[in-house]
Amino acid sequence: MIETVKNRRTIRKYLQKDISSDLLNDLLEASFRASTMGGMQLYSVVITRDSEIKEKLSPAHFNQPMVKGAPVVLTFCADFRRFTKWCEQRKAIPGYNNLMSFMNAAMDTLLVAQTFCTLAEEARLGICYLGTTTYNPQMIIDTLKLPELVFPITTVTVGYPDGIPAQVDRLPLEAAIHEEYYHDYTEKDIDKLYAYKESLPESKQFVEENRKETLAQVFTDVRYTKKDNEFMSENLLKVLKQQGFM
Amino acid sequence: MIETVKNRRTIRKYLQKDISSDLLNDLLEASFRASTMGGMQLYSVVITRDSEIKEKLSPAHFNQPMVKGAPVVLTFCADFRRFTKWCEQRKAIPGYNNLMSFMNAAMDTLLVAQTFCTLAEEARLGICYLGTTTYNPQMIIDTLKLPELVFPITTVTVGYPDGIPAQVDRLPLEAAIHEEYYHDYTEKDIDKLYAYKESLPESKQFVEENRKETLAQVFTDVRYTKKDNEFMSENLLKVLKQQGFM
Repeated sequence: MIETVKNRRTIRKYLQKDISSDLLNDLLEASFRASTMGGMQLYSVVITRDSEIKEKLSPAHFNQPMVKGAPVVLTFCADFRRFTKWCEQRKAIPGYNNLMSFMNAAMDTLLVAQTFCTLAEEARLGICYLGTTTYNPQMIIDTLKLPELVFPITTVTVGYPDGIPAQVDRLPLEAAIHEEYYHDYTEKDIDKLYAYKESLPESKQFVEENRKETLAQVFTDVRYTKKDNEFMSENLLKVLKQQGFM
Repeated sequence: MIETVKNRRTIRKYLQKDISSDLLNDLLEASFRASTMGGMQLYSVVITRDSEIKEKLSPAHFNQPMVKGAPVVLTFCADFRRFTKWCEQRKAIPGYNNLMSFMNAAMDTLLVAQTFCTLAEEARLGICYLGTTTYNPQMIIDTLKLPELVFPITTVTVGYPDGIPAQVDRLPLEAAIHEEYYHDYTEKDIDKLYAYKESLPESKQFVEENRKETLAQVFTDVRYTKKDNEFMSENLLKVLKQQGFM
């Protein structure tokens, strides 16, 4: 099982083969065993198989081909609605329309999503996370009819892998662990920790294709720009308010 | 492996037995294989073994005994600092001091935390998540010396289990899955989905001990109150700003 994780790759191309409801439900049910804040289970998973709905979801994910190409698209949502409704039906006054509750629900949701993904990979399925979910939450909310106190956190496409791509790099272990307290990075540390990543042929190609001087500039100027991040931050706040979480 | 997840329990009592650095590092390194936004690995893990530091962390977690009782306490932090430093050293202008970037880093962090937990349980260790991390972030920031663009998201205590507690309940699968789009809950749905939880002897005991009328009131009036949530939401915003994420 640790071998499955060590050898994992994100899978973006899938065979034209359905995932049975039995298998999918078994994996989801097991994933609901993940730790959850106070046993509240503050999440919902929307299962998309219908190609018309995938078509509608696609632009929210910048038309990445996995959405239409995967047999199953799962939208993992923070959900304080179910719990709130329960409270209201039981003479209890809920107070979950705030940022802290959103954070709690988002955490519950991500633990479930990741447990699902690990189990799916162990069952020889392939998965891909779509980080675009929180970039365009409104389109997803509209398409999946998410009501107040429900918010889409992440999307996972799932299917049987059509080919196994090369494994991507990771920083060395010491880059992200700190003994006892946070040891801030010196210039020398940064040079050393990023040396391998920068030396890779695919990194060099990436720099060249984007006509940049450094790999970091591909991230700051093209992939994850300040301007986009600031725009999306404003939008995130707006949609959080609208869904009742602020 | 799916059996490990299906049978899992949160473990709050640990044997007085250390976890070797080799095992811990192996599990952490494997967990860093989890999906990460654009390959950026926006997390750091602070490993606490020192009993003086545990002593200082303990009040931040409302003195829950797991902090001092576990051989290892892991604080999983959203970290845009390492990446930002790299950008600055590579003539790239980073733009990650905003809410969207915090969300992206928090998501990366939680996927790693949960992958670690699943692998640790497969290795017969026991874990407990401490949801208190985001309630008192400032105390943790001070103790672990977390600088700007680093934020504690969740804490996991780890050790060899001292006994196996009963497994806690979960809502039925259908409570949290939605086919194609969100199907809002009717009053009847809520009654049905929560019936089992409400019928449990431990739930009834919980209601009685807290002198409440319903189980939901134990949550709203005692465990997760509106007042606490609103206070902690304000605090969360304040500390997010202070750590440079807003």
